[in-house]
Amino acid sequence: MASRSGCEAPRGGAVAVTGDGPEPGAPLSAEPRDRAPDFGRGLLTAVVQDAATGQVLMVAHMNEEAYAATLRSGRATFYSRSRGRLWEKGETSGNTMRVMEVRLDCDGDAVLLRVDPRGPACHTGNRSCFDADGSARPAGGPPDTR
Amino acid sequence: MASRSGCEAPRGGAVAVTGDGPEPGAPLSAEPRDRAPDFGRGLLTAVVQDAATGQVLMVAHMNEEAYAATLRSGRATFYSRSRGRLWEKGETSGNTMRVMEVRLDCDGDAVLLRVDPRGPACHTGNRSCFDADGSARPAGGPPDTR
Repeated sequence: MASRSGCEAPRGGAVAVTGDGPEPGAPLSAEPRDRAPDFGRGLLTAVVQDAATGQVLMVAHMNEEAYAATLRSGRATFYSRSRGRLWEKGETSGNTMRVMEVRLDCDGDAVLLRVDPRGPACHTGNRSCFDADGSARPAGGPPDTR
Repeated sequence: MASRSGCEAPRGGAVAVTGDGPEPGAPLSAEPRDRAPDFGRGLLTAVVQDAATGQVLMVAHMNEEAYAATLRSGRATFYSRSRGRLWEKGETSGNTMRVMEVRLDCDGDAVLLRVDPRGPACHTGNRSCFDADGSARPAGGPPDTR
């Protein structure tokens, strides 16, 4: 089984990487330049980030159809594992998300959606599912190892 | 199977949510205040964000041991599905990550690590695994539905 735990080690078919972020004004294509999502290993993990503030809003999953629908419509669309179907974010709550940019990670099994959210991301009414009540700090504070 | 596709719908055992972010200077505990990770449904999805810049750096996974090790040591530690063991980020590359804050999401199956990275997160040498070569914009640009 291929690694799906981040990109500590290189994989075959390495992508050419030319930079650390888009150049200002650089053209973006409807498909990533030299990278494709890898649905052969299961659902993509989708991380949703507020494009304006950088706040991480939620995590969901995408199958190939959800990924294509998001690129086509510009609205964040996921695959619900519990319901076994696509769901467009906000289809019940009205809190849709306009997708400004889609970024695949280095090994194509995770995707970052940079969005303009039209309301809270979380069913609790919070802007983010990662709210203050889920916050902890490592015991004793982070080590000063630098 | 419980939903693991974001938090569009409420779950049983809802947590009391009192805010959208930590108050400045608010005390943080070593465990989230009224929330616990749900390892009964499998590995946690861990999203790693640069605490200083907000850049999303990578996605990995955590079992109970990795989560505990991260809270205990203050160094980002994950579970490698391919290697079937814990790995501390940077154990081979030296690019460790000091964990400043850990945030569980509303249903306890994802965790946001806000870190101070000691070098690139990605094996490619990029700061983030979500680099410019993985970037796309929805066809025709995002819809103006607001």
